[in-house]
Amino acid sequence: MTNSSNLPTHGRHILIDLWGCDRAALADGEALDALMRRAAESSGATVLQTCFHRFPPTGVSGIVIISESHLSIHTWPDEGFASADFYTCGDVRPEAAVEVLRAGLAAESSEVLVVDRGRGGRDRSIRVVDR
Amino acid sequence: MTNSSNLPTHGRHILIDLWGCDRAALADGEALDALMRRAAESSGATVLQTCFHRFPPTGVSGIVIISESHLSIHTWPDEGFASADFYTCGDVRPEAAVEVLRAGLAAESSEVLVVDRGRGGRDRSIRVVDR
Repeated sequence: MTNSSNLPTHGRHILIDLWGCDRAALADGEALDALMRRAAESSGATVLQTCFHRFPPTGVSGIVIISESHLSIHTWPDEGFASADFYTCGDVRPEAAVEVLRAGLAAESSEVLVVDRGRGGRDRSIRVVDR
Repeated sequence: MTNSSNLPTHGRHILIDLWGCDRAALADGEALDALMRRAAESSGATVLQTCFHRFPPTGVSGIVIISESHLSIHTWPDEGFASADFYTCGDVRPEAAVEVLRAGLAAESSEVLVVDRGRGGRDRSIRVVDR
């Protein structure tokens, strides 16, 4: 195992957990697709493709592939819970995407974790920025 | 903001950074698609769809949507670096997928971070399990 701590970061990975969301919004795959596209575009990312699937009884999983990496969302409508991740590189503002998602799901609370990928070392690469 | 610490976890999110990888393997989109499918299947997941894109000059981004959530990979062939994430729910063994990925890319070193999603609270939900 080599020491990789001097490597630069290769992108920011933002993990967002959202509670108390609008349950109808979490179950509507088409609306989630549109919301996630809007979130990506608000961050300045270029959307290449989206792939959304509904799961019985009500959950939705979706991915937005962007030129700058990806966004994903998985929803549990019965619990009002959603988990998303935004992996972005370059001149993208994922914070804007987080705000679009929070507003679009009418989330009561959320936690945002930021991991700078490719740096190695827990202390430098992981932080909770918002709860 | 509500206190969400008593909610159960909604899946394990594993972030894998890999250094010193085979550069040809990192640049071959079709081979990466097959490798990520094999990684998903080795974990016991059910593959629904894959979406892979090549980026100039040599990078690849890919997503595997599984019934149990998703796997992603982004590669920087010129640097021998790849970052992947496996988000899984239920009876899936993502550790098996990590081993398939490490072997398939001939990675010299790696770091595996595990985040239990949906629990709230940094102390309980984040750990580096392997470096």
